[in-house]
Amino acid sequence: MMGDHGISTDQISLNDVIWFKPISLGAMNLQIQWRQVRLPLIHAFTIAHGTSDFRINTIVSIQHQGITGFGLAAPNPRYGETPTTTDQALHRIAMMLPENPLAIRSIMHKVNQHIEGAYAAKAAVDMALHDWLGKSLDAPLHYIWGIDATQIAPTSMTIGVDTPEKVQKKVREVPQFKVLKIKLNGERDRELIQAIRDVTDQPLRVDANEGWRDKTTALKEIEWLATQGVELIEQPMKAKFWGEHAWLKERSPLPLIADEALDGQGDMTALANAYHGINIKLMKCGGLLPAMDLISQARAFGMSMMLGCMVESSLGIAAAAQIAPLVDYVDLDGHLLIRDDPFLGPRLEKGRLQVPQRPGLGALERLAH
Amino acid sequence: MMGDHGISTDQISLNDVIWFKPISLGAMNLQIQWRQVRLPLIHAFTIAHGTSDFRINTIVSIQHQGITGFGLAAPNPRYGETPTTTDQALHRIAMMLPENPLAIRSIMHKVNQHIEGAYAAKAAVDMALHDWLGKSLDAPLHYIWGIDATQIAPTSMTIGVDTPEKVQKKVREVPQFKVLKIKLNGERDRELIQAIRDVTDQPLRVDANEGWRDKTTALKEIEWLATQGVELIEQPMKAKFWGEHAWLKERSPLPLIADEALDGQGDMTALANAYHGINIKLMKCGGLLPAMDLISQARAFGMSMMLGCMVESSLGIAAAAQIAPLVDYVDLDGHLLIRDDPFLGPRLEKGRLQVPQRPGLGALERLAH
Repeated sequence: MMGDHGISTDQISLNDVIWFKPISLGAMNLQIQWRQVRLPLIHAFTIAHGTSDFRINTIVSIQHQGITGFGLAAPNPRYGETPTTTDQALHRIAMMLPENPLAIRSIMHKVNQHIEGAYAAKAAVDMALHDWLGKSLDAPLHYIWGIDATQIAPTSMTIGVDTPEKVQKKVREVPQFKVLKIKLNGERDRELIQAIRDVTDQPLRVDANEGWRDKTTALKEIEWLATQGVELIEQPMKAKFWGEHAWLKERSPLPLIADEALDGQGDMTALANAYHGINIKLMKCGGLLPAMDLISQARAFGMSMMLGCMVESSLGIAAAAQIAPLVDYVDLDGHLLIRDDPFLGPRLEKGRLQVPQRPGLGALERLAH
Repeated sequence: MMGDHGISTDQISLNDVIWFKPISLGAMNLQIQWRQVRLPLIHAFTIAHGTSDFRINTIVSIQHQGITGFGLAAPNPRYGETPTTTDQALHRIAMMLPENPLAIRSIMHKVNQHIEGAYAAKAAVDMALHDWLGKSLDAPLHYIWGIDATQIAPTSMTIGVDTPEKVQKKVREVPQFKVLKIKLNGERDRELIQAIRDVTDQPLRVDANEGWRDKTTALKEIEWLATQGVELIEQPMKAKFWGEHAWLKERSPLPLIADEALDGQGDMTALANAYHGINIKLMKCGGLLPAMDLISQARAFGMSMMLGCMVESSLGIAAAAQIAPLVDYVDLDGHLLIRDDPFLGPRLEKGRLQVPQRPGLGALERLAH
């Protein structure tokens, strides 16, 4: 597919790092540009939806008054977004930016009114604007938002679906994590959990990724998992199975967390009816402002909150880490699954991300391109 | 009633300005103190609940690292809060403050967990912390929160219940306002509206302050008011009449705004069932953070939003003005109803408050006490 610059975005994304031609607004007062980066996976990744060995992220930069803010898009095909649709959305958003990047809420409100979906592209712009804001104030975003960086919960480390032996090997590689997130797919689930239990006593979280085919199967599996030191279940069945999840919620011995069932701003009444909590991801909701909205809405509904991520550069993880102290469950490990990360983000210490103390989102570019 | 300092707070509040003994925390790293101020009303004020000629506000200051943040409590007896209960709550909150005032969300979360109600005291502390934060970053709060200060709606000016002649006189005194808010009390309502219509064509908002006794009376009055250039109705009947308001919402030709029915964080599902919108007041919800939560929840429910105030110093109006560009209806005139305001806050220009461009909340003390 060809972008506005006559470059096949699918093609370049597999090879090089190319900056898209900068778009300047208001007599150069504000410049926005973006590039796609190919991130090789440390382990080829298998979940219920498929397998692959790399990811494409798009890095957005917004320059104004000598300050550069960075943001990240990690589009996920599950939500109908790809590097190409992200590029297209960024072109449209770029044309809507004002000369002055300060009024982030107004800017994103206008973007949301005119562009449906494209949450990854919106998240990248939202992040870049917040990074710019923090740098302009010379303060980390969590400081600006009054968030106590010391109160962050341990992050879980994701273990993908694989053979029992490979899963055991992966688990042994990550002893520093206080909690593991196991991806199941409804096939060799019990065998996998038992293999993990042979090598660790750590608490486990289970992400079914919509993998269980019906509510009775899901309930039976969850009842068994509750005996295995599992503390919560993410997205047991297909997101569209609202009634089945409501049935399951009434019976499940473990909390159910909506992941695929929450896209955009979601319908919190429907979510609260069918799940105990929600998994908030910047790439699903469109950035830090909508994530804060979701946190406040989930709190109003008495729901628990997980903050998750895609497989993505530390730039996106640094953004999420800024608000992570506000949620119950932290699942920010996407940057640990890749090599050649173009950004340096939060350090990990005893299983907890250290919220960066640098201005803005606190991510540093590793290479100057 | 005697406070911890052996001073009768009811007594001093009528006479002098007295600073309560400062409370220092963590070897003087943080100091909090407060004082009560008596604010004479320009017009003796009559609403459905009663009449009076002054108000007591409590001014809180938090000092840390040479920076002072100010916040305001304007307790309202309708919500069971008085200067005395506010003083008591501030004593308790003061003991819970950490040495470092930065993590505002954690601080207020802890305060909310331990202290029920006392929204005016909580609002004062929330404001003082945000004023401190903004001053420490040398930036206005609206800038920090990405809010476009130029997008503020015109504010309404409140006209209290009075004789038709006095109401006409009050209306003639305020030609600069683009919209007037008329307090009705279910007695001489039509006569008052007709008297106003004899002297102005301005759009009107009507605040019934729970004054209509039943739903059929309310509907009949609202249907007539809709023919008189009235654009919305605030709190038609008693806040506890949820079912009656739901009935009225289905039939009312004008939007209904919940005021007394929204206290604390409210039950947004119940509110959305009975009203078209909500009136958010810092003194009812407990400050700027809960107000932002309410804004995001109201938006999720598709409800309209008014930002209101008590009769209060410009300090409180300056705080509300920071977030006023986010709401549909601005009703921030409480500082225009008093004399001897101890703070200088937002200027009024062509009926719109000018969001202060000074750091923090942007209010300046008029006198050094």
